[in-house]
Amino acid sequence: MYLNGDFVAEDAAHVSIFDRGLLFADAVYEVFSVLAGRIIDHAAHMARLERSLAEMTIAHDAAATDWAGVLATLIARNDLTEGTIYLQVSRGAADRDFLFPAPGTPPTVFAFTQARALVDNPMAQRGMRILTRPDRRWGRRDIKTVQLLYASMMKMEARAAGVDDVWLVEGDVITEGTSQNACIITRNGHLVTRDLGHHILPGVTRLSLIDIARQSGITVEERPFTIAEAQGAAEAFVTSASLFVMPVVEIDGLSIGDGRPGMETMALRKAYIDHARGTG
Amino acid sequence: MYLNGDFVAEDAAHVSIFDRGLLFADAVYEVFSVLAGRIIDHAAHMARLERSLAEMTIAHDAAATDWAGVLATLIARNDLTEGTIYLQVSRGAADRDFLFPAPGTPPTVFAFTQARALVDNPMAQRGMRILTRPDRRWGRRDIKTVQLLYASMMKMEARAAGVDDVWLVEGDVITEGTSQNACIITRNGHLVTRDLGHHILPGVTRLSLIDIARQSGITVEERPFTIAEAQGAAEAFVTSASLFVMPVVEIDGLSIGDGRPGMETMALRKAYIDHARGTG
Repeated sequence: MYLNGDFVAEDAAHVSIFDRGLLFADAVYEVFSVLAGRIIDHAAHMARLERSLAEMTIAHDAAATDWAGVLATLIARNDLTEGTIYLQVSRGAADRDFLFPAPGTPPTVFAFTQARALVDNPMAQRGMRILTRPDRRWGRRDIKTVQLLYASMMKMEARAAGVDDVWLVEGDVITEGTSQNACIITRNGHLVTRDLGHHILPGVTRLSLIDIARQSGITVEERPFTIAEAQGAAEAFVTSASLFVMPVVEIDGLSIGDGRPGMETMALRKAYIDHARGTG
Repeated sequence: MYLNGDFVAEDAAHVSIFDRGLLFADAVYEVFSVLAGRIIDHAAHMARLERSLAEMTIAHDAAATDWAGVLATLIARNDLTEGTIYLQVSRGAADRDFLFPAPGTPPTVFAFTQARALVDNPMAQRGMRILTRPDRRWGRRDIKTVQLLYASMMKMEARAAGVDDVWLVEGDVITEGTSQNACIITRNGHLVTRDLGHHILPGVTRLSLIDIARQSGITVEERPFTIAEAQGAAEAFVTSASLFVMPVVEIDGLSIGDGRPGMETMALRKAYIDHARGTG
């Protein structure tokens, strides 16, 4: 893996216990997916990383760092053909103080790979079953920080309930999944997904898919939608860097459509994977 | 400092980059204050740590660990007469996954000291100036987790505005300070502080102070109060382990009372310090 300029073994990769990522969750990250050894939507992930760093005023100059070279080296050294690369930048280590450390404190940067099958994910055949839960995360979900504890707790709650994941709701309006954007296809064939703002992460896959859908003539509506509207939709799915487009077949015990992955969803999944292979 | 069973130098204290504290903010902590070499309210802090661990299902058996011995050793080795001890427990290191790692994964535990003057804090003479800002933290502020990014950002915003700190508000109701509980003294002499729940941290100092106030005949009301009520109050202050009882003299540019630390507040500060010296 990569750590502060060096390539090191994973079991030798350590940071100071004074790292602000560890003491204050003062860190941002990205997850890149790799298909056939190539990174999907690389530029969009780097742009979002730069936005997260700017919003948090973390002084890592991503544009001046040869991240493309680092990621390529990680892919080569780990023989990664399919999987993900995790990249994190924290504000660095300093004597513990809520106030940010003095300018010049070097950020902590690291990246590692995780091999896994992304295209041949068995969940794409059976579809995801989803629970809804109140969205109790902080108010700046548009910044990709490591404040992931609530999402982690909700994934555990889903597992305990025997389902696959949770969609988070404010009132009865869906914000997004624990680590995916939530989408539905209405009975008149429109793709509906939540409008951007501080309430959701601006998903890179969401953005690519909106482009793909529009290019194939699908009307896309970016707006709030409720649990009831999702349950009554023709199809539902999530988008994320590692799940691509993943069908949702059940929300809070109610089947979506006929309870099987939707045809339009599976066509979009195929189109996204084609895009992923092409732009890598 | 102390790390996973050993006493090590601070610059040699490292954790795996796979620690869930670093990747998911999946960690809880406590800050103990030390006066004359003795820990204040030790039992109450340990009880809160155990509650945080239980709420997060982090498998560290605090009661079975000789934390009293560890803290005493840290105080002795660092010649700490006055200052704080920070103690953190994370869920430990594991391959990155939102789902909690397998049972048996050892938590990461560490503690370090910070020497600083607590009693002779110049802010006690001049009082704190406070801004109010929307409370955009997550919904389980009663658990003392390291998800402190918003509090950190708000302290930076206070500094940029030339004031001392921020009180967080939902609508126009004050929840608490960025790292303190918020209190006012009404014109009829009642001490008002927010009632407990998921919206605020159950402050150890808050709890001790409520006891002290009641013992000295002061009526204590635990209930919501607004910015306007605080601005119109006779006195205002915060409580925290390291600030003890600290007067607030200005909220959003409006002076509280005559703009100087309140007499009742200063009497409570003295009584708390007496308590701190006595229970150490």
